[in-house]
Amino acid sequence: MAADGALSFPVVAVNEALTKHLFDNRYGTGQSTIDGILRATNILIAGRNVVVAGYGWVGRGIVSRMSGHGAHVTVIEIDPVRALEALMDGYQVMTVGQAAPWGDLFVTATGNVNVFRREHFASMKDGAIMANSGHFDAELDLDALRALAEGHVRDVRENVQEFDLGGKKLNLIAEGRLVNLGAAEGHPAAVMDMSFANQALSAEYVALHHTELEPRVYVVPEAIDAEVARLKLAALGIELEPMTAEQAAYVSSWQHGT
Amino acid sequence: MAADGALSFPVVAVNEALTKHLFDNRYGTGQSTIDGILRATNILIAGRNVVVAGYGWVGRGIVSRMSGHGAHVTVIEIDPVRALEALMDGYQVMTVGQAAPWGDLFVTATGNVNVFRREHFASMKDGAIMANSGHFDAELDLDALRALAEGHVRDVRENVQEFDLGGKKLNLIAEGRLVNLGAAEGHPAAVMDMSFANQALSAEYVALHHTELEPRVYVVPEAIDAEVARLKLAALGIELEPMTAEQAAYVSSWQHGT
Amino acid sequence: MAADGALSFPVVAVNEALTKHLFDNRYGTGQSTIDGILRATNILIAGRNVVVAGYGWVGRGIVSRMSGHGAHVTVIEIDPVRALEALMDGYQVMTVGQAAPWGDLFVTATGNVNVFRREHFASMKDGAIMANSGHFDAELDLDALRALAEGHVRDVRENVQEFDLGGKKLNLIAEGRLVNLGAAEGHPAAVMDMSFANQALSAEYVALHHTELEPRVYVVPEAIDAEVARLKLAALGIELEPMTAEQAAYVSSWQHGT
Amino acid sequence: MAADGALSFPVVAVNEALTKHLFDNRYGTGQSTIDGILRATNILIAGRNVVVAGYGWVGRGIVSRMSGHGAHVTVIEIDPVRALEALMDGYQVMTVGQAAPWGDLFVTATGNVNVFRREHFASMKDGAIMANSGHFDAELDLDALRALAEGHVRDVRENVQEFDLGGKKLNLIAEGRLVNLGAAEGHPAAVMDMSFANQALSAEYVALHHTELEPRVYVVPEAIDAEVARLKLAALGIELEPMTAEQAAYVSSWQHGT
Repeated sequence: MAADGALSFPVVAVNEALTKHLFDNRYGTGQSTIDGILRATNILIAGRNVVVAGYGWVGRGIVSRMSGHGAHVTVIEIDPVRALEALMDGYQVMTVGQAAPWGDLFVTATGNVNVFRREHFASMKDGAIMANSGHFDAELDLDALRALAEGHVRDVRENVQEFDLGGKKLNLIAEGRLVNLGAAEGHPAAVMDMSFANQALSAEYVALHHTELEPRVYVVPEAIDAEVARLKLAALGIELEPMTAEQAAYVSSWQHGT
Repeated sequence: MAADGALSFPVVAVNEALTKHLFDNRYGTGQSTIDGILRATNILIAGRNVVVAGYGWVGRGIVSRMSGHGAHVTVIEIDPVRALEALMDGYQVMTVGQAAPWGDLFVTATGNVNVFRREHFASMKDGAIMANSGHFDAELDLDALRALAEGHVRDVRENVQEFDLGGKKLNLIAEGRLVNLGAAEGHPAAVMDMSFANQALSAEYVALHHTELEPRVYVVPEAIDAEVARLKLAALGIELEPMTAEQAAYVSSWQHGT
Repeated sequence: MAADGALSFPVVAVNEALTKHLFDNRYGTGQSTIDGILRATNILIAGRNVVVAGYGWVGRGIVSRMSGHGAHVTVIEIDPVRALEALMDGYQVMTVGQAAPWGDLFVTATGNVNVFRREHFASMKDGAIMANSGHFDAELDLDALRALAEGHVRDVRENVQEFDLGGKKLNLIAEGRLVNLGAAEGHPAAVMDMSFANQALSAEYVALHHTELEPRVYVVPEAIDAEVARLKLAALGIELEPMTAEQAAYVSSWQHGT
Repeated sequence: MAADGALSFPVVAVNEALTKHLFDNRYGTGQSTIDGILRATNILIAGRNVVVAGYGWVGRGIVSRMSGHGAHVTVIEIDPVRALEALMDGYQVMTVGQAAPWGDLFVTATGNVNVFRREHFASMKDGAIMANSGHFDAELDLDALRALAEGHVRDVRENVQEFDLGGKKLNLIAEGRLVNLGAAEGHPAAVMDMSFANQALSAEYVALHHTELEPRVYVVPEAIDAEVARLKLAALGIELEPMTAEQAAYVSSWQHGT
C-alpha cells in the first residue's frame, strides 16, 4: 500500500516484531495447530507421513511439534534458502506434486493461495487429511475439491468433512479455515501476552510520536521488542546477564579483527 | 493372585504383549495425555517446567511428547535403572520433594498411590497444574489436597478444578482421573487396533488351548505379538526384510564367538 | 552351547545386564559410532540420508544420535515389533534393497552377517559411505565388494578405503571392523564404568555361589543391576526416592484392580 | 569502520549471507564443536550438564547437537529475545554465575570477551571442562585461570590442559582457541562449499559493479544467496517448487487483507 501511495497514515508493523512472530507464530501456532488437528480427528501422529507447506515461522513451529510427536515430516517450500534449512534440519523436502501421493496429513502455512490444487487432490491417498494454518481458507483450492467430489460431502466428525471422490475419500478439517481457531482455542494466553504487549506499546509509541511519523510502514522499535522479552523473562523468574563494561566496549569496536 | 492361589482359570496377560505396552502405552498415552491437558487448560507447553512421575512406557511416552513440545522435563523415578536411563536420555531426575517447588505442570504415571502428598502440595508454586495418566485417581492424594483447600474448590474451566490454599491456587485436571479419558478421547484408533488384535488373538489362543493350560498367568505367545506387528506394518505399506538362509544359520549358532 | 550340552561351567551373561546393554550399547556405541565416522570422514551429517541396519540397543543409540545431528534416518529391521517401533519413533523403515540406492551413509548394527551384499553395493550411489558397529567385520560382504572393485581399492583418508566400481566409488570405514574402535577410542569411561562394575560384581557372585550353580547361563542378578545403577546415580549426585510403606504395600497387592 | 570513516573501499559482508551464517555457523560449527570436544576428551555427553554461552547461530548449532547427544543444556544469553527463544526451545537459561557451579562442560560462542572469569572458575565443579567456539581465545579469561592455578598446569591428553586449583582441577580444550579447528578438522566440505560460493560470487559482484559502489559495507545481494542455495539443492537432487502465476500475483498484492 505504501508503494502504491494508498497508505494515508503511519503504520507500525506489529506482526513483524520479534516478540510477535518468533513466539506467537512459532510456539503458539505450532502447538495449537496440533491441538486443533487432534481435537478434530483424534488420529495418532506417531509414524504418520505429514506434509507441511511453508517453512516460515508458522511452518517451522508446526514441523517441530509434528516431529516431536513422532511424525515423518516433509516440507514444501519455494524459497531455496528455507528449503535448504528444512533439509539440514532433518526433514525431507518435496514439491507439491511429489508430496501429494506421499502424505497422510497435509498442513498449509504458506500465506499464499491454492497450494494444493485439483491435480494434487487427485493423486492423494484414500483417507488423507488436510488442514490449514496459514491465510484464511485460501491455501487449499476448495472449489476444485468440491468439484471433484460432485456434492458427495458429509460431516464425519465435528469439524471434519469427508469428500468422496469416487475411488477414495479425502478429509478436510475446519473447512480449510485456520485450524487452531476453527478446531481448538487459538493461541495459549502465555504467548498472546507478548503479542498484545507489542500492540499496546506500539500504539503508545504512535500516540507519542505521531507528529514525527510519515504515512509509511515502520518496524516495531527495537527497544519495545527487547522490553517485551525482558518483562516476559522476569515474569518467568529468569535473570538476564548484563554485559560487563569491558564486553560492551569490545562488541562496539572493530579493532579486534575476527 | 496366582501366588496367593486365588486364580481359578488360565490368564493371558494381554497388557504385557509387546504390541500392547510398547505402542498403546507409549505412543497412545503419550499423545493423548498431551491432548487431554491442552483441551482442559490451553496452556503453552514450550518453556514450561514439566514433572513426569514414572519412567515406565507410559511415562516415557509422555516425556517424549512433552519434550517434543519444548517443555523442560524432570522425571521422578524410584527404580535406579530407569532413573539412570531418564538422566542419560537428557532429562533431569529429582525426588518428589525436589520436583514439587520446581514444576509448573505435574503428570503422574507410576501405577502407584499418593505420589504427591500434603507436603508436596504445600511446596508447589501458585498456579501449578496436576494431571494423572496412571492408576485411577489414586496417584495424587486428593483427600490431602481437599483438606488443604478447606472447601475452597471451584471449576475454572471444563475439567479443571482450582484448589485455593490461601496464599496460592493449585489446579487439578479431570479430578485426577486418567486425563486422556477424562479430558480427551482416549487413545487413537490407530494404536488401539493393535491392543484389540492382541486381545482377540489371545482369546482365540485360550479357546483353542484351554485343555493344556493351567490356572496361572501366561505371557502372550511371541507368535501372536509378531503377527500383530506384521499385520500393522502391512497395513501401513511397509515391507519386512526376511533373513537370508545364511543369516538364519548364523544367529542360531554359538560357534562364531563375539 | 547350553542347549548343545557344550557348556561345562556356570556362566553369568553380563552383556545381558540392564546396566550394560541399556547404557554401554545405547549411549556408548551411539556416540562413539558418530565419533568414529566423523574422525574418519569429516562429513556433514545434517541433511544426509543415513541408513541404520538393526534397531536393537546399538542401532537405537546410533539412530538417536544421527537424528540429533540432523540426518534423515531410515531403519532396516527384520523383526516386525522393532520395525514398527522404528516407524512410530519417526524413522522410515525400508528393506535392504530399498535402502541401498537411497542412502548416503550406511551403518550396520544387526549382529548378523552379510547385511549388505553384492546386489546392494551395485545399487548404491556414487560416493556412498559404509561403516559397521555390529559384529566383527562380518556385516558387510567385503569379499563381494572387493570382487566388484576388481582390485581398484585405495586409501583416501586414514581409515577410509575407496572401492572403485567403474561408474562409481564406494567408501568403507575402518575396513568394516567396529567403527568406534577402529576409527575412534571406543566407549567413553563414563559408560564403561557400569559395564566393568557388572563384570566385577558378577564374577564375585560366581565366586561366592559356585557350589549352588549349574553349568548353564544365568542372568545377572537383579540386585547387582540395581546396585550398579544406584552407585552411578550417587556418583552423579542424583538422589533416589524410596517408596513409602503405603506404596510398597500397594504395588505388591492384586486387590486394587486396574 | 564505516561509521568511523576508516573504510576506504566497498565491502560485501559475506559472513552475513544467509547461505553462510545459517549453514556454516549453525550446522558446520554445531557438528564440528562436538567433534573437537569428543576427539580431545572422549567424554560421554549423554546425561551431562552442558552450558553454552551465546544463542546466536553458532550457539544454536552447538545447543542442538548437544541436545541431540542427550545432554542437559543450559544457555547463557544477554539478549532478552534470544534468551526467551532458548527457554521456549526447551533449554534452561541462567546467568554466568548461576551456570558456573551447575555445568560439567562449558562451551563459549558469544563473540565477546571474558565470558567466564575468575569468580566463575572459582565456583566450577572439580573436573569441569571448558571449550571455545567463538572469538579467538578471548572468551575465557585465561590469564585469570592461569593465575588461579599458580603454574600447576599440565597436558592430560592431546589438546587438553588440566589446571590444578588446589581443591579441584579444571580442564581446558585446545588452549581456549576455536575447538573445531584446534581439536578437529574445522567444518565439513559439505558446508564450506556454500560459504566459498558466496565469497566467489560476491568477489565477482564487486569486480563487476565496483564503479557503482561506495566505500561502505554492503549485504550480499539476495540473488547471490538464493543462487547458492539453489545450486546446493540441485546438487542434492532436490527439486524446487516454482510459484504459480496466481500465487506470484497474490503475494505481491495488499488487497487480500489478512
